[in-house]
Amino acid sequence: MTEQKKLAEASLDSLYRIFTVPEAPDSTLGKIDQSISQNLTGFLQEHIVAAERDLAQIEKDFSNPFIPQEPSFVSDQIEFLLDKVVAQSVHIASPSFVGHMASALPYFMLPLSRIMTALNQNLVKVETSKAFTPLERQVLGMIHHLVYQRDSQYYETWMHNSSHALGSFCSGGTIANLTALWAARNTVLRPSEGFAGIAQEGLAAGLNHYAYKSLAILVSERGHYSLAKAADILGIGRRNLIAIETDGRNRIRPDVLEQKCAQLHKDGSRVMAIVGVAGSSETGSVDPLDAIADIAQAQNVHFHVDSAWGGPTLFSRQHRPLLKGIERADSVTIDAHKQLYVPMGAGLCVFKKPETLASVEHHAEYIIRKGSKDLGSHSVEGSRPGMAILVHAGLHIIAKGGYELLIDEGIAKAKAFAQMIREADDFELISEPELNILTYRYLPEQAKLGLASADIEVRQQTNKQLNRITKLIQKTQRGRGLSFVSRTQLNPKQYAREPIVVLRVVLANPLTSMEILANVLEEQRAIVATDPAVQEALTLLPCT
Amino acid sequence: MTEQKKLAEASLDSLYRIFTVPEAPDSTLGKIDQSISQNLTGFLQEHIVAAERDLAQIEKDFSNPFIPQEPSFVSDQIEFLLDKVVAQSVHIASPSFVGHMASALPYFMLPLSRIMTALNQNLVKVETSKAFTPLERQVLGMIHHLVYQRDSQYYETWMHNSSHALGSFCSGGTIANLTALWAARNTVLRPSEGFAGIAQEGLAAGLNHYAYKSLAILVSERGHYSLAKAADILGIGRRNLIAIETDGRNRIRPDVLEQKCAQLHKDGSRVMAIVGVAGSSETGSVDPLDAIADIAQAQNVHFHVDSAWGGPTLFSRQHRPLLKGIERADSVTIDAHKQLYVPMGAGLCVFKKPETLASVEHHAEYIIRKGSKDLGSHSVEGSRPGMAILVHAGLHIIAKGGYELLIDEGIAKAKAFAQMIREADDFELISEPELNILTYRYLPEQAKLGLASADIEVRQQTNKQLNRITKLIQKTQRGRGLSFVSRTQLNPKQYAREPIVVLRVVLANPLTSMEILANVLEEQRAIVATDPAVQEALTLLPCT
Repeated sequence: MTEQKKLAEASLDSLYRIFTVPEAPDSTLGKIDQSISQNLTGFLQEHIVAAERDLAQIEKDFSNPFIPQEPSFVSDQIEFLLDKVVAQSVHIASPSFVGHMASALPYFMLPLSRIMTALNQNLVKVETSKAFTPLERQVLGMIHHLVYQRDSQYYETWMHNSSHALGSFCSGGTIANLTALWAARNTVLRPSEGFAGIAQEGLAAGLNHYAYKSLAILVSERGHYSLAKAADILGIGRRNLIAIETDGRNRIRPDVLEQKCAQLHKDGSRVMAIVGVAGSSETGSVDPLDAIADIAQAQNVHFHVDSAWGGPTLFSRQHRPLLKGIERADSVTIDAHKQLYVPMGAGLCVFKKPETLASVEHHAEYIIRKGSKDLGSHSVEGSRPGMAILVHAGLHIIAKGGYELLIDEGIAKAKAFAQMIREADDFELISEPELNILTYRYLPEQAKLGLASADIEVRQQTNKQLNRITKLIQKTQRGRGLSFVSRTQLNPKQYAREPIVVLRVVLANPLTSMEILANVLEEQRAIVATDPAVQEALTLLPCT
Repeated sequence: MTEQKKLAEASLDSLYRIFTVPEAPDSTLGKIDQSISQNLTGFLQEHIVAAERDLAQIEKDFSNPFIPQEPSFVSDQIEFLLDKVVAQSVHIASPSFVGHMASALPYFMLPLSRIMTALNQNLVKVETSKAFTPLERQVLGMIHHLVYQRDSQYYETWMHNSSHALGSFCSGGTIANLTALWAARNTVLRPSEGFAGIAQEGLAAGLNHYAYKSLAILVSERGHYSLAKAADILGIGRRNLIAIETDGRNRIRPDVLEQKCAQLHKDGSRVMAIVGVAGSSETGSVDPLDAIADIAQAQNVHFHVDSAWGGPTLFSRQHRPLLKGIERADSVTIDAHKQLYVPMGAGLCVFKKPETLASVEHHAEYIIRKGSKDLGSHSVEGSRPGMAILVHAGLHIIAKGGYELLIDEGIAKAKAFAQMIREADDFELISEPELNILTYRYLPEQAKLGLASADIEVRQQTNKQLNRITKLIQKTQRGRGLSFVSRTQLNPKQYAREPIVVLRVVLANPLTSMEILANVLEEQRAIVATDPAVQEALTLLPCT
């Protein structure tokens, strides 16, 4: 036996070991594992470094493009990850990080995720997922019922029906929206005499067959950017995703929507979907869904609701009426990794009619065969993990009652925080919280004078400087690492649609207290008082 | 305080507990967690019930579409999951389950997955992922280097460049293929004088502007079904995904490909991409990539390689030459949850030129802003988990050397198993393993006579019965739950392109031994000998 052969065998042995021998409890990884199990909050607090390092600095630790030839010890890699990745990650779970659409997770989600990973099922087909397939169908049925509230007979007929699907489970809201719009597009350009359908013949042939000049999707100017991406991917074109003006509270104007529909129809364009927003990402606003449903129904257009964020509001008896009309939607997107408190990577869309998804059905020889119950026959994705088990657990352990409390608490907290901002004389509330999201900005006395000026240039100049100041406050606060709010840009009615940069707060973490929120404002005041860049920007305000 | 209010507060308390108090080590979930950590193999063996229950029976446990009002105890839900989900899941990790494109996982992947879940980063933007963003860019750079082998200067320039991306990380090969074809489509119908590009104006306007009748994608008849799905989603149409004939070893015929290109060009259709397959899902065959690259180059067409399965073969010095020409591809798909041994839900595509992905770049106000390094500006998905940390760990802990051994072992085992089948007088090898996948079927003496008949009807009748028998053997073996091979349908040259149902074996699990493979054949013989349905089918063979 040559030396080389011997070496190869030795390595093969060590390879087998990583597949068969667990990490010892007293190994680096074993200890971390226990510490996360026993005290997640402590682990995160201890290991995530608060103060922000410059991204260019962090990149230096990830600059080697060459895969090493020789294996590393697990412990060395884990030390590296602790020092360079965990330490420099974002403290998503922190109750003072109120800028993300994420929260602390219920503790049980962690060991349950490990069960999911250990089983490593693939939901594309029954043969690689067995019980996970009916489980996922049940989860889709439960969310379908949350939205559409059909009777038990309905679900008995459709929930486990092999040739139909009540929805599609996927990695998140973007794919969910894409799935819904894909089905809507394929339904509009469906097979008919002399045309095998868009799925077979393509978009251009479909437009030609039906004599449409183009397809269009209508959504308010607060629509999520994933809709524009879907318009691109689906071949419709971003320009044909038409942004409809909103009212003073960031909700679509049904009168404008109706006019636009009529105009497009006159111009030879076919509206393939109207999208209602239930919980816009930027302001949490909810469109008047019933009014949109009326228009969609009158025009015979697919009505999709993007409630990736706001969907779980349906759990709340108090706030469910805000979403009135959602039960008339042809399809509805809900993210599980947002307000169902599941880890990243889970979303879904449900469809009113069990036949809608048939327009995107597909099969193959070795998988998702016709007549099978394989979930992959109606999904954008192929191989997928069993994240549905986490949603199933949430729906049972937290249940309606628990989700209702979480939703009600979040909205109540947002309203109380809005009141706190309104009462402060150095902040301005820009968008009222309809759900648990609000936007505001810092507004010192001299800026108030500028905004009250009769001179439009002074007003605009003031807002321009305020925009700079808002950006600086947000970046500095993020850099300090004690708390975090996000920022976006709106065109509010009260400022004649000028671009206004705002601070954005999302209140989904049940551990965020009013005291923490008061401290967020206090920290912003302190930044204003001490940060040289903000101080300089303040001097540039007109009326200073 | 009313009774109702008191109840609500009590529940809120218990809600806080699930966010703040870890599962006790002696709780049901705590015990499972430890048992998975300490002995994954034992846990899976103990809890997964071998014998298959009827799916209709399993569905009964998942038939309630109503979300319960009242919260459940974690332990009750876990008992349910153990009994009804874990017990009835598929033993993916078992070394005798050789029909899936999955394997046992290295042990370190489990605790590392928990770290990922605990951090719950969102890779859509730097603000929700910090160090994970450069880490993912590094992983993309490393895989890019594995394929394209550019020098360190190249990666220094491009790997962390904010306005470019060397690739896109996603949930799996299907989305990776979609991403690559999306970029190819948008590049073909790119902006030019008087046309803002397909992303803005849509597919029909693009075809019109460039005076193409349609777009076409060419791939061998062994191409993955995700390509047809992508053709549907992208508006190109499944009919315009054109299947090119393969040779006797399931590899695309470059002569036919070239003819087809010429014909399409003559007919006014624009070929937007040619796809080479490196490790087809059904047979593991690898197209002659260099010959395809020549044609794509001559025709100025985007060349995509779908090496979702076979990509990691590049680690093997012995077998890398099989993929010669992959370094000329414009884009390449590789799945991480297949032969990089990462849990379900990770794939990626890399691009030869850093500017190709610019054709699908997108931005928004509150996220993935222009000039940011946010990864979400070039991805199909929006919010995404930090799975890249697992790939990063694999590339360092297993490293080139380890992956090479895994690849070499798998291919060697497949060749040895092929030899075992060839030597058996009651089995027939249908496709030779080029990589670690092969197909075969049971072939008794009387069927050999039938296949040797001069009468074409006898030959066809024999294959038809054999197809039934193959299906029965596969289903029965799956139902017994001791071992598992999958099945598909091929149209092999040696049977004049008749549909032949075959058993399919994928050898990626390093724990699968030759003894286990011999037992798989033995079990199939036992099924033939004892299963009444197979016995009956045998009597229907001609020449019996």
